[in-house]
Amino acid sequence: MKSDIEIAQEAKMIHIRDVAKQLGISEDDLEMYGKYKTKLTDELWEEVKDREDGKLILVTAINPTPAGEGKTTTSVGLGEAFGRMGKKAAIALREPSLGPCFGIKGGAAGGGYAQVVPMEELNLHFTGDFHAITSANNLLAAMLDNHIKQGNALQIDTNQIVWKRCMDMNDRVLRNIVVGLGRPVDGVVREDHFIISVASEIMAILCLAENIKDLKERLSKIIVAYNYEGMPVTAGQLNAVGAMAALLKDALKPNMVQTLENTPAFVHGGPFANIAHGCNSVRATKTALKLADYVVTEAGFGADLGAEKFFDIKCRMADLKPDAVVLVATVRALKYNGGVAKDDLGTENLDALKKGIANLEKHIENVAKFNVPCVVTLNRFVTDTDAELSFVKEFCEEHGCEFALSEVWEKGGEGGIELANKVLKTIEEKESHFAPLYDVNLSICEKIETIAREIYGAAKVNYAPAARQAIDRLEKLGYGNTPICMAKNQYSLSDDPKKLGRPEHFEITIREVYVNAGAGFVVAITGTVMTMPGLPLHPAAERIDVTDDGVIVGLS
Amino acid sequence: MKSDIEIAQEAKMIHIRDVAKQLGISEDDLEMYGKYKTKLTDELWEEVKDREDGKLILVTAINPTPAGEGKTTTSVGLGEAFGRMGKKAAIALREPSLGPCFGIKGGAAGGGYAQVVPMEELNLHFTGDFHAITSANNLLAAMLDNHIKQGNALQIDTNQIVWKRCMDMNDRVLRNIVVGLGRPVDGVVREDHFIISVASEIMAILCLAENIKDLKERLSKIIVAYNYEGMPVTAGQLNAVGAMAALLKDALKPNMVQTLENTPAFVHGGPFANIAHGCNSVRATKTALKLADYVVTEAGFGADLGAEKFFDIKCRMADLKPDAVVLVATVRALKYNGGVAKDDLGTENLDALKKGIANLEKHIENVAKFNVPCVVTLNRFVTDTDAELSFVKEFCEEHGCEFALSEVWEKGGEGGIELANKVLKTIEEKESHFAPLYDVNLSICEKIETIAREIYGAAKVNYAPAARQAIDRLEKLGYGNTPICMAKNQYSLSDDPKKLGRPEHFEITIREVYVNAGAGFVVAITGTVMTMPGLPLHPAAERIDVTDDGVIVGLS
Repeated sequence: MKSDIEIAQEAKMIHIRDVAKQLGISEDDLEMYGKYKTKLTDELWEEVKDREDGKLILVTAINPTPAGEGKTTTSVGLGEAFGRMGKKAAIALREPSLGPCFGIKGGAAGGGYAQVVPMEELNLHFTGDFHAITSANNLLAAMLDNHIKQGNALQIDTNQIVWKRCMDMNDRVLRNIVVGLGRPVDGVVREDHFIISVASEIMAILCLAENIKDLKERLSKIIVAYNYEGMPVTAGQLNAVGAMAALLKDALKPNMVQTLENTPAFVHGGPFANIAHGCNSVRATKTALKLADYVVTEAGFGADLGAEKFFDIKCRMADLKPDAVVLVATVRALKYNGGVAKDDLGTENLDALKKGIANLEKHIENVAKFNVPCVVTLNRFVTDTDAELSFVKEFCEEHGCEFALSEVWEKGGEGGIELANKVLKTIEEKESHFAPLYDVNLSICEKIETIAREIYGAAKVNYAPAARQAIDRLEKLGYGNTPICMAKNQYSLSDDPKKLGRPEHFEITIREVYVNAGAGFVVAITGTVMTMPGLPLHPAAERIDVTDDGVIVGLS
Repeated sequence: MKSDIEIAQEAKMIHIRDVAKQLGISEDDLEMYGKYKTKLTDELWEEVKDREDGKLILVTAINPTPAGEGKTTTSVGLGEAFGRMGKKAAIALREPSLGPCFGIKGGAAGGGYAQVVPMEELNLHFTGDFHAITSANNLLAAMLDNHIKQGNALQIDTNQIVWKRCMDMNDRVLRNIVVGLGRPVDGVVREDHFIISVASEIMAILCLAENIKDLKERLSKIIVAYNYEGMPVTAGQLNAVGAMAALLKDALKPNMVQTLENTPAFVHGGPFANIAHGCNSVRATKTALKLADYVVTEAGFGADLGAEKFFDIKCRMADLKPDAVVLVATVRALKYNGGVAKDDLGTENLDALKKGIANLEKHIENVAKFNVPCVVTLNRFVTDTDAELSFVKEFCEEHGCEFALSEVWEKGGEGGIELANKVLKTIEEKESHFAPLYDVNLSICEKIETIAREIYGAAKVNYAPAARQAIDRLEKLGYGNTPICMAKNQYSLSDDPKKLGRPEHFEITIREVYVNAGAGFVVAITGTVMTMPGLPLHPAAERIDVTDDGVIVGLS
């Protein structure tokens, strides 16, 4: 069987100007990076911004399992299927980070015959957006420490600095560091932390900003620290906004590449799906909607985190109206949710499937709470039996959802036509009446509790004392009226990753709460969230190489 | 008077494919980054590599002063002048770093009407080369610390780690840090240091590598640490080479942009001029020589550092034969070398000029030691008097050098025609018999002493005990037969920045010696070298901004 990178390298890519032409974009509106990658100019946005939007389809999934669900693969394959059916379609995905690429995963751009290409470039520097974010993040940190060293006119309390440096790398020794050691000219000593660049608030800001003006306004609101009186000190007060915006100017422009079947793919931005909202950029999604009749996008993790934040943060802020949701599952993952061990997932087990499908059921109910119609798709594996497939199909139909098998990993767009037809049927027959789950003007606790109760199915929310204090402080400072960005383990609907299926009667505990004032949301963290991953015993980096004639091998 | 960025933004740039066409490069050999920047493919190099070389002209200068000399400006203007004269010419320069851009300088790509454009993009991310270097550097660091954490099979002594993390930023608090704090899963605690990316050995390697194969061989030789037995541990032993090469694959390809007068400009690589060799990439210079009849390049700092290392490191390793040297001075800088205070440089002062010209005299003598013919140019200022200009002209002619005034800052290529004619005359009339200054097979001390005596004019070289020890160790380990990369303050021929003019009877002290085994040179440091600059009280970053419609202001 061919590896993803082998399939990708055999792809017959067409020149990106011809991909763009499919959406009516002229070469003048492209800022090409080689023959197969382009950014889209600000002028293009100005030209198309008053057009009517195409249909927006969110691909999300049940809670992720080690069995794999194939959400990105489904998104790509669905876009390709629309393409094969002669529809004007586009895909809008997140950019991958170098961290996982050199860590465990070794690359991410779909899989099999449903990939985005050029795969190597997507996985390495691409168009430099993440590097720009890293630079802007670290310029702000350097200006912050310089301000302190040069007299600290803003009276920044070095024990209350919340801004962290970042790097697009899995590097555990940078999680907790001490900086400023040495002589007096080497700055003021303090504890500091590096996070991975995709966890930077700047990534979230870039993905939510409508344009340069909005970007600058958001950057200026970033809280970098608190002063001795407990008041926030912002990036605006450090005079860092202009230079940061200059660094981010090009990164704000959406990137376009193509799928293996030459369907246009907007790949832009990639915020963490826990402490941030986990969606590609508003700018890319909006541009795609102006240019294509059908736009397929996805959100990080399962629907409890990804779809909820897509709806309550991204769609709310950007005034987007999603038309349909595709909920991805696999028979294997449902059986895993029903208690089957990873090694036994290849054996038919209807009892486990019946038990595990409760996870899917809860996500179907959740999507309905946002009043968006839903299609369920099973990403088919060779080990799935007819009885298992029929069971899931009937279950979905009983729950009022269209159902389709998907075979895009093996067959590309051809394997997604059944799904595409069901999506079209759903959009035609069922109108979306999208509305966010909660009113932003509720208190922070009310908002958290609404999400926990309605989406996770929790009976009660507990607050650690520090979280309770932080909530009081934020509400006093005027940061109470924003959406909530929940950070929770992705494996369970609860905050305990071991509770699979559809847990009930559980409580969740909020451990930490803070505001990302530039991004415009309050982050509520349950459990521990790792914002700087480490490398495994044998990092994927050890297997990556480039031949003497420049071919990259070992990405997967 | 218009600022540099205003002049640059008014430039009538032509499409980069038309710039490339001037050198006979077809569009197929371009990897364009937008309309005005391109990388050149590996295929182009394969196509042209057996052609005859054009003429190689090095622009260097007297010791730098606060008065400013305009070496880059002269390089750009000279290239433009060749262009105006109908010659097939190209310029080969270094890429600027973000550090100085946000620190004091605020941008660097020539000045006035002799600039390389697009100026903003050159000064910000350009084609991402420096970000690639930063990533490769830090991937190696992460793999090193991960190796230690995962069992330390190579027995790395954490007190003898020589590899440092890097960032393309002026950030003094990162000079001396402690990493790995926290819990056991957060890695092993140790002292660490960040350097600015241009000081990374990877930058030097990228600039000296002939191709991917050579790049990988050099990367594999990088010494990251010593083990408990005192033996070197390399990047090759950490299995980091393939992934680093994958990150650097595109960065190795030369970049092309244009001057304000549309002359092709290769801008590629930018190693520090103290602890590294301070020249643009071998790959860019060699490609330019195959495509143009006249290639103008420059080297960092004054001729004592820049030209010496250009000749003894870059030309030696890459087998380049420079045809002429242009030595840049200003009347103001010569008077400063003669003891005049910065504020009084606008007043005619022939006595000071006579005294200060000894600095120029020494550099003329030094260039002669490499057997390359030399042209002196005065970068003209409005305050220069006729008597002063005549004095310098006569001085040069007495010393056997052609002389030309240059007014490229004010007039662009037109202001460089006199200089270009003198360069052409020199190349025609005086044959270059270039040879490096010393034999690499001399001992490390003999090589250091040859440079100190012959180039700096030192009477004696002293060695700090640590330096002496390091030299012994390196020679025992087999690193004795490489060129020497001297790190010395740039302001004086001596190691005391206050000794201007042509100091004599001085001693220099070597404080630290180490090998950059991948770059292929031994670094000998006199005095203190700052490898991570800091920001000033009011960083240039505070003045940089981008307007709502995307125009960058405040770079200068």
